[in-house]
Amino acid sequence: MITLDDCRRADAEDPLAGLREQFSIPADLIYLDGNSLGALPARTPGRMDDIIRRQWGTDLIRSWNTHGWVDLPQRLGDRLAPLVGAGAGEVLVADSTSINLFKLLDLALQLRPKRRTILSDTGNFPTDLYMAQGLTRFLGRGYSLRLVEENELGEALSPDVAVIMVTQVNYRSGRLHDMARLTRLAHQAGALALWDLSHSAGVVPVDLGGCDADLAVGCGYKYLNGGPGAPAFLYVNQRHQGKGFPTLSGWFGHQTPFDFNLAYTPAPDIRRFLCGTPPILSLAGLEAGLELLSSVDMKLIRRKSMNQTDLFIHLVRQECPDCFQLISPENAAERGSQVSLGHPAGYAVVQALIAHQVIPDFRSPDIIRFGFAPLYTRHTDIWEAGQRLSAIMRSGEWERPEYQVRHSVT
Amino acid sequence: MITLDDCRRADAEDPLAGLREQFSIPADLIYLDGNSLGALPARTPGRMDDIIRRQWGTDLIRSWNTHGWVDLPQRLGDRLAPLVGAGAGEVLVADSTSINLFKLLDLALQLRPKRRTILSDTGNFPTDLYMAQGLTRFLGRGYSLRLVEENELGEALSPDVAVIMVTQVNYRSGRLHDMARLTRLAHQAGALALWDLSHSAGVVPVDLGGCDADLAVGCGYKYLNGGPGAPAFLYVNQRHQGKGFPTLSGWFGHQTPFDFNLAYTPAPDIRRFLCGTPPILSLAGLEAGLELLSSVDMKLIRRKSMNQTDLFIHLVRQECPDCFQLISPENAAERGSQVSLGHPAGYAVVQALIAHQVIPDFRSPDIIRFGFAPLYTRHTDIWEAGQRLSAIMRSGEWERPEYQVRHSVT
Repeated sequence: MITLDDCRRADAEDPLAGLREQFSIPADLIYLDGNSLGALPARTPGRMDDIIRRQWGTDLIRSWNTHGWVDLPQRLGDRLAPLVGAGAGEVLVADSTSINLFKLLDLALQLRPKRRTILSDTGNFPTDLYMAQGLTRFLGRGYSLRLVEENELGEALSPDVAVIMVTQVNYRSGRLHDMARLTRLAHQAGALALWDLSHSAGVVPVDLGGCDADLAVGCGYKYLNGGPGAPAFLYVNQRHQGKGFPTLSGWFGHQTPFDFNLAYTPAPDIRRFLCGTPPILSLAGLEAGLELLSSVDMKLIRRKSMNQTDLFIHLVRQECPDCFQLISPENAAERGSQVSLGHPAGYAVVQALIAHQVIPDFRSPDIIRFGFAPLYTRHTDIWEAGQRLSAIMRSGEWERPEYQVRHSVT
Repeated sequence: MITLDDCRRADAEDPLAGLREQFSIPADLIYLDGNSLGALPARTPGRMDDIIRRQWGTDLIRSWNTHGWVDLPQRLGDRLAPLVGAGAGEVLVADSTSINLFKLLDLALQLRPKRRTILSDTGNFPTDLYMAQGLTRFLGRGYSLRLVEENELGEALSPDVAVIMVTQVNYRSGRLHDMARLTRLAHQAGALALWDLSHSAGVVPVDLGGCDADLAVGCGYKYLNGGPGAPAFLYVNQRHQGKGFPTLSGWFGHQTPFDFNLAYTPAPDIRRFLCGTPPILSLAGLEAGLELLSSVDMKLIRRKSMNQTDLFIHLVRQECPDCFQLISPENAAERGSQVSLGHPAGYAVVQALIAHQVIPDFRSPDIIRFGFAPLYTRHTDIWEAGQRLSAIMRSGEWERPEYQVRHSVT
């Protein structure tokens, strides 16, 4: 039997508890959707104001040099690198996760020119699959995306697979894939491994280098707290750099963009995966989020995250027995930082929770996702979320008609 | 003989003069680089602060619905449309100019499947050429980019040309292409016309609809004043919508992105040219810039722009006779809103001007560009720029060694 006092004690003993003050979160809100949109770091508004008023407004075009705008995508990449086990020069912040997937799938197919299959799983996030569909359709000539169940990925590594594309933490179930094992299996089959870290970077310790992963992408607006639609990142293992010819060959990826040559020559380093002019305001927002993470031990984050997902599962079972199906793995070591509950009326339950100032999100057709962000989620928040969920389920409030009306996004 | 009093009088009589107060421009700066990075609208910092603190910080994930984030790319497109002669639903704000070029070249080649040539000119901006190079190289099978001199575009429209890709205002010379004529010639040859409006949108009246142009892209951070690296826009003529299959098939372009289907189905409308999650903070910056333009008559902007480029040319000839070669057309009707001067030591002259608080920019190997933004450039600024340029040239100050040191960007 877990009590509110247990949760208070856990907060009091939490070595990361002080970090919550570094965020601006409404006092009356229990925000459990940092896996979809990370909360606002307290430093961000001031930082953005400075970038806007001083760097843009006052220094204007000169800021490309004087404030280092021109190198910002690489500088942020280098700042992000330790969070994902990458080295300097292996990570770049640019564009969206979708566009970055295209860039790296394009590279992967060039690095394995005799192979025509991209292998992924039906649990992957749709945009990953869509980008692979667009790319292979465009190429024609037998290129294709093959989808299998996520537990069949290892066996499906046939000799035609150029690259395996997996999201490390499944966006629905929260299941954590074994990066080291799948990467090793891919390499044994002569394929490359491309990891999507959107639901792991910043909350799960990731060791791209230690796993010898080839390529990776990830999202800036979830656990990196970069703001809505923040720029994404990409990783190219040092051994694959300087190879291939980027199909998205924009001027910022040119060896010497300001020579304004007529012919594209890719930069020799990670910069070749830039494309258009970098979005400075959005990058500045992400920089503020990354700074917060730089000072925190990833092991402490992971330990708190595992404790919190365990706590929530226990509370749901204790307070709402038999209400939900646990979609996430039972074992915390096999989960990312979310707990997914299945319920036939999941959408309405989410609306009822939102009406009671608890914010999870919904994933069609029947999954309620609760995300736990160790930088700002308190154990008492989790207690309170369990209480309100229980009240909604016991009273039948979730059956009210107004909770059944669908919005475009939840 | 033009005098300072003439310029003062022109400011006093300028119907757009009051708009300068809508911008935050340092008092001691003569900023003639709005064609590279537009100035900061006075409303932008407050707007951004609201988006950041209230929409992101307080309303968090709910803002996708409650603040209409999910439709922001289309809403901004509809707001931008009248500036370029487009209709509702024909314009979208998304990604970068480079990425948008790829999307629309991809569409053009699908709309003309038997043709394999992209035709452009050596005066086009490099990223336009680079993106076409990347695309055609990727496609192989005889696809190629053919480059001719800009005055040879009409004759070069051979039967293999699928699309002609032209930047309406040449970034070096400021020369204004005849959109109606070139589009007509392209259509007569069975080709499509794709226009890059980066140096014209917001400062030259553009009539995509009246010219029956097929496709267009443009930049948000020049005359639209959207901030450094602001999102770009794209235009697809209504008659081409719902056709083709976007190769950059990201989830926001899906017909029903929040159904999370495994297979990509493009949205039936302009949304199919979205790709990843929209960058909300950057979009908000551009929205503030667009609002400023919405209230202004484009004809007044063009008239002032032509007067100002004429004025600058006259002043340069009057104050610095025989110093420079005029790279831009003599006739204002053939120019965009910039004046380009050739000088063998152009880079050093630009550095000397910057040291004296006059900001033009430099384009390799020998071009000094002066941009005139009718929303905030005063005639007296132009007078003063002429005076300082003249002093630098007469004193030989531009020959100082410190002005010869190259930065990465100018």
